[in-house]
Amino acid sequence: MSAISTDLAEKTARLSHEVTRPFPNSRKIYVQGSRKDLRVGMREIEQTPTHTATGIEENPPIPVYDTSGPYTDPEARIDLMKGLPPLRAPWIEERGDTIELEGPSSDYGLRRRQNPELAGMRFEHIRTPRQARPGMNVTQMHYAREGIITPEMEYVAIRENCRLQALREDPRYVRLLRQHHGEPFGAHWPKEITPAFVRDEIARGRAIIPANINHPELEPMIIGRNFRVKVNTNIGNSAVTSSIEEEVEKMVWSARWGGDTLMDLSTGKNIHETREWILRNAPMPIGTVPIYQALEKVDGKPEELSWELFRDTLVEQAEQGVDYFTIHAGVRLQYVPLTADRVTGIVSRGGSIMAKWCLAHHQENFLYTHFEEICDIMKAYDVSFSLGDGLRPGSIADANDRAQFAELETLGELTRIAWEHDVQVMIEGPGHVPLQKVKENVDKELADCYEAPFYTLGPLVTDIAPGYDHITSGIGAANIGWYGTAMLCYVTPKEHLGLPDKQDVRDGIITYKIAAHAADLAKGFPGAQLRDNALSKARFEFRWEDQFNLGLDPEKARESHDATLPKEAHKVAHFCSMCGPNFCSMKITQDVRDFAAKQGLTEDEALRKGMEEKAVEFVKMGAEIYKEV
Amino acid sequence: MSAISTDLAEKTARLSHEVTRPFPNSRKIYVQGSRKDLRVGMREIEQTPTHTATGIEENPPIPVYDTSGPYTDPEARIDLMKGLPPLRAPWIEERGDTIELEGPSSDYGLRRRQNPELAGMRFEHIRTPRQARPGMNVTQMHYAREGIITPEMEYVAIRENCRLQALREDPRYVRLLRQHHGEPFGAHWPKEITPAFVRDEIARGRAIIPANINHPELEPMIIGRNFRVKVNTNIGNSAVTSSIEEEVEKMVWSARWGGDTLMDLSTGKNIHETREWILRNAPMPIGTVPIYQALEKVDGKPEELSWELFRDTLVEQAEQGVDYFTIHAGVRLQYVPLTADRVTGIVSRGGSIMAKWCLAHHQENFLYTHFEEICDIMKAYDVSFSLGDGLRPGSIADANDRAQFAELETLGELTRIAWEHDVQVMIEGPGHVPLQKVKENVDKELADCYEAPFYTLGPLVTDIAPGYDHITSGIGAANIGWYGTAMLCYVTPKEHLGLPDKQDVRDGIITYKIAAHAADLAKGFPGAQLRDNALSKARFEFRWEDQFNLGLDPEKARESHDATLPKEAHKVAHFCSMCGPNFCSMKITQDVRDFAAKQGLTEDEALRKGMEEKAVEFVKMGAEIYKEV
Repeated sequence: MSAISTDLAEKTARLSHEVTRPFPNSRKIYVQGSRKDLRVGMREIEQTPTHTATGIEENPPIPVYDTSGPYTDPEARIDLMKGLPPLRAPWIEERGDTIELEGPSSDYGLRRRQNPELAGMRFEHIRTPRQARPGMNVTQMHYAREGIITPEMEYVAIRENCRLQALREDPRYVRLLRQHHGEPFGAHWPKEITPAFVRDEIARGRAIIPANINHPELEPMIIGRNFRVKVNTNIGNSAVTSSIEEEVEKMVWSARWGGDTLMDLSTGKNIHETREWILRNAPMPIGTVPIYQALEKVDGKPEELSWELFRDTLVEQAEQGVDYFTIHAGVRLQYVPLTADRVTGIVSRGGSIMAKWCLAHHQENFLYTHFEEICDIMKAYDVSFSLGDGLRPGSIADANDRAQFAELETLGELTRIAWEHDVQVMIEGPGHVPLQKVKENVDKELADCYEAPFYTLGPLVTDIAPGYDHITSGIGAANIGWYGTAMLCYVTPKEHLGLPDKQDVRDGIITYKIAAHAADLAKGFPGAQLRDNALSKARFEFRWEDQFNLGLDPEKARESHDATLPKEAHKVAHFCSMCGPNFCSMKITQDVRDFAAKQGLTEDEALRKGMEEKAVEFVKMGAEIYKEV
Repeated sequence: MSAISTDLAEKTARLSHEVTRPFPNSRKIYVQGSRKDLRVGMREIEQTPTHTATGIEENPPIPVYDTSGPYTDPEARIDLMKGLPPLRAPWIEERGDTIELEGPSSDYGLRRRQNPELAGMRFEHIRTPRQARPGMNVTQMHYAREGIITPEMEYVAIRENCRLQALREDPRYVRLLRQHHGEPFGAHWPKEITPAFVRDEIARGRAIIPANINHPELEPMIIGRNFRVKVNTNIGNSAVTSSIEEEVEKMVWSARWGGDTLMDLSTGKNIHETREWILRNAPMPIGTVPIYQALEKVDGKPEELSWELFRDTLVEQAEQGVDYFTIHAGVRLQYVPLTADRVTGIVSRGGSIMAKWCLAHHQENFLYTHFEEICDIMKAYDVSFSLGDGLRPGSIADANDRAQFAELETLGELTRIAWEHDVQVMIEGPGHVPLQKVKENVDKELADCYEAPFYTLGPLVTDIAPGYDHITSGIGAANIGWYGTAMLCYVTPKEHLGLPDKQDVRDGIITYKIAAHAADLAKGFPGAQLRDNALSKARFEFRWEDQFNLGLDPEKARESHDATLPKEAHKVAHFCSMCGPNFCSMKITQDVRDFAAKQGLTEDEALRKGMEEKAVEFVKMGAEIYKEV
């Protein structure tokens, strides 16, 4: 037993306070669906009232999409040793199309379970894996195409709406729900996201719900360009650093800040056991790149990989509950030489593994040749494809080149095959792309891959800022999300340089939540502007606490404010550190408005008529207020 | 004498090491112009060689645009007490169109100079101000329209080219100079930026060189959409915090990280003296918002402002050497009520001051009614207009509304008037704008303001991330820069929350350098991709030191790397912390390339033919290399 697992149970039993502490002035709410066990968690941010000259005006609570799962619910009892409650278990069982196996059906899974040396680090309450009954297909796409609306579909419909219909009927939200027209570039949605709409989008292949039947703890979420833009985060130990307890804590940390899905990219020791801990405690879909683990099994020698070994790895991971697999089946032998003249060759790990295998054997990529067999595994557990872009550009120079686009065309071909098996698919995208070439990526993906959801890494819009690549890529991410990418894979400040620590993960996620939200606003997604409007109103009214709390990172906002004006009194002051107490532009504007309102002045003409006699009074009022602050 | 000025001389005499330490492996170079005293400073980043299987390949130095002035030149003797050498003094004198005054011609400037209590904080070597001879016009626009190419114009031409013509003739740069076609949205430039092209752009009003005759220390730079996108930074004390020595250090800090211009937005005590210290030591153009100081002179009561007081302030600042003035002359009385129904009213300080004045007196904005008199002052010192957007939106909700665009149309009208006086003009822009509405801002500005350079703050593309507004706005900045904005006003993480410290300033500037460079790449500005290509090549070849040094912030890149792999040996290792030593995608790609090169294989067909027999050898080679690392 390795050193890293000493005291594992004890350590993972408690999460640090910083990853679970409640968000200020927020409460967890649950929106009830059509069945008792379908309750969709959201966060509601309470606001303080506005004090006006004429009295007190209530500011209604703002519901926000919440990825944090039970971890921010003070009512929930969290026990990492037992895992999260399997909320989807009854839904899966009721469908009656799966069976419980007697144990893992992969050789590797069996060996790991039987190895007594691993007892100290093994998750204790491993469930028996489920599998589709012979001949059955248990994918959400299959159900959708049969016309069935699953509880998962209803769940995501409620989740995407984020109580918008209720708010529309509440007069307190009328002004707050004003929103600009978007430019959706072909994305479209009904006035209300209905379960039927979700079903139709999934049937069409335009959206996916990654939800393995062996990951019943997951809170369903949807990835598609007619829904909110999502953010994926990555964790994973490597040969150099990191341990199981750190990875679990990072997963919860990721959920806290807004990670919609999470990829476990571990390449170091005990990948199997780490993954079990993560899955059992993860409220979000978990993705992996199975070839990474397969490579570990052959001691890092790509040429020793085989279809049989890879197949066993897929089954092993599918039976643990991994929700989507990155599969680099588009790295075809004939495309490899197209990368030889690049500035940065092949930068995808999976891509280079497969390229090396292809060259070593001078054979076609076994992921490509065995693709239908992979589909058979995917549909037996409902694992979604994330078709990997193994030939993505690793530099601005290599963007949109023949190697990249040749692979993309092949991914389109594979999408059709997967869809023939009713297997859910999303398509991975670059990478490093200058701004003027970003849109071409989306347009080509939509055309070549039949509108399967696009899932992109960044892209970084310049290569010259190592240490700041969350920002170089956040710019590209906002744009590509706007153009139609469904999910953005985050990048941290440590990209290209090292492994992210917790602060890097937080910076990366918040940057990507900004990008995703900017894209939702730009597309005009219904209700997207609500939080902006509420926060701006709070800002304008000097409701400092509300301004902090409505932000993506209330803790950081408060710290930033307090660095200049730490006193509690300043948080109710009607001024800020930029201008000081003697003069404040926000306050003057408020005076302008108060005056206009008093006079019933909202029109130019009215102003001209009424202003003169009141001007003196107005100025006095403006100059006197708050002078004692 | 106030407490903050105690020991001022001693403190400002030394800058902290962190603001002046040399960039690693860089040297200051000077490109000689047509006259002896015209030498344009640049930074050249040296690279280490590449070790290949066949030998050593030299990597040529990369010249980069340098805003840091003499502060990063180890040959330069910096003495803050004396100020920078007045490099433009002979150019100004030679033109023979200015006179030296006997002393300040503003009442306030005279009073400050004569006040013995200020002796302890006053800059010692104040020059006698210069002014245009009666009837003369000393603006760069005036010269340009006369067909004259000034040394300033030649200087910026050399600076913009950044040695591109020389590199084009050097075979070592052939691959490094490859660049994607841009999408310039109507921007255009010749193959080489010539002094004549600069002159023509200035004559046309499409670009400006902010360069007051009383700021001879300045290194000329150009703002226009047919040149590199620039970044402005802000500093300034306020009633709450900060001191002279801090402001001077911040100015040098800003120059170090890439601030092209700097606005001194001080609102606290001793504004006049602080500004003198900044100007005498500033290698970049300095801008101010004169109404801020005017307001201080009337104890913060906008209604007590007058044209006479404001005029005196303009002269005071022009004679100190301020290079551009933000003038909120577009906030017309009739537009004020248009803001009453906004979510965030008037958020511009200058805008709200003028709005309050207009309402208080029920008179048209005196900046508007006295605009031609302002022009007379501007042309006597060559101060450029930065026509302020006093009605810019302060929230996503208020973007692109009637108030904003009404003011923009007035700014266009004022631009024409300024141009009749041959006074240089740029136009300020928003603020807070969702992505889909950003381009309309540029298009409308170009149309309404006759292509005068656009200078925008952000814009922030969402309101929901206080604490991260360098990022929300950096996204908007990259886009608006791409569409045609000439200069981006930076935003720090403390925006809306507090005053930025040094780290915030650095984060803000680097974010905006990223945005500006992303825009240059997207537009296809000649040579813009050179640094990206060089850095990516270094990254691909595991030249860690070169990767750090070619970045915008070498220190941060190195720290980020060392956080995971601190050992010096790792900086020459052919692996990184992401994958560890056993497997590395970059290395495999290198193997692919080496193999392809060995075989003369760059074509698919050649690969098919030659691969089979060599596959075994290749695999062995790939598996063995570096296994001892």
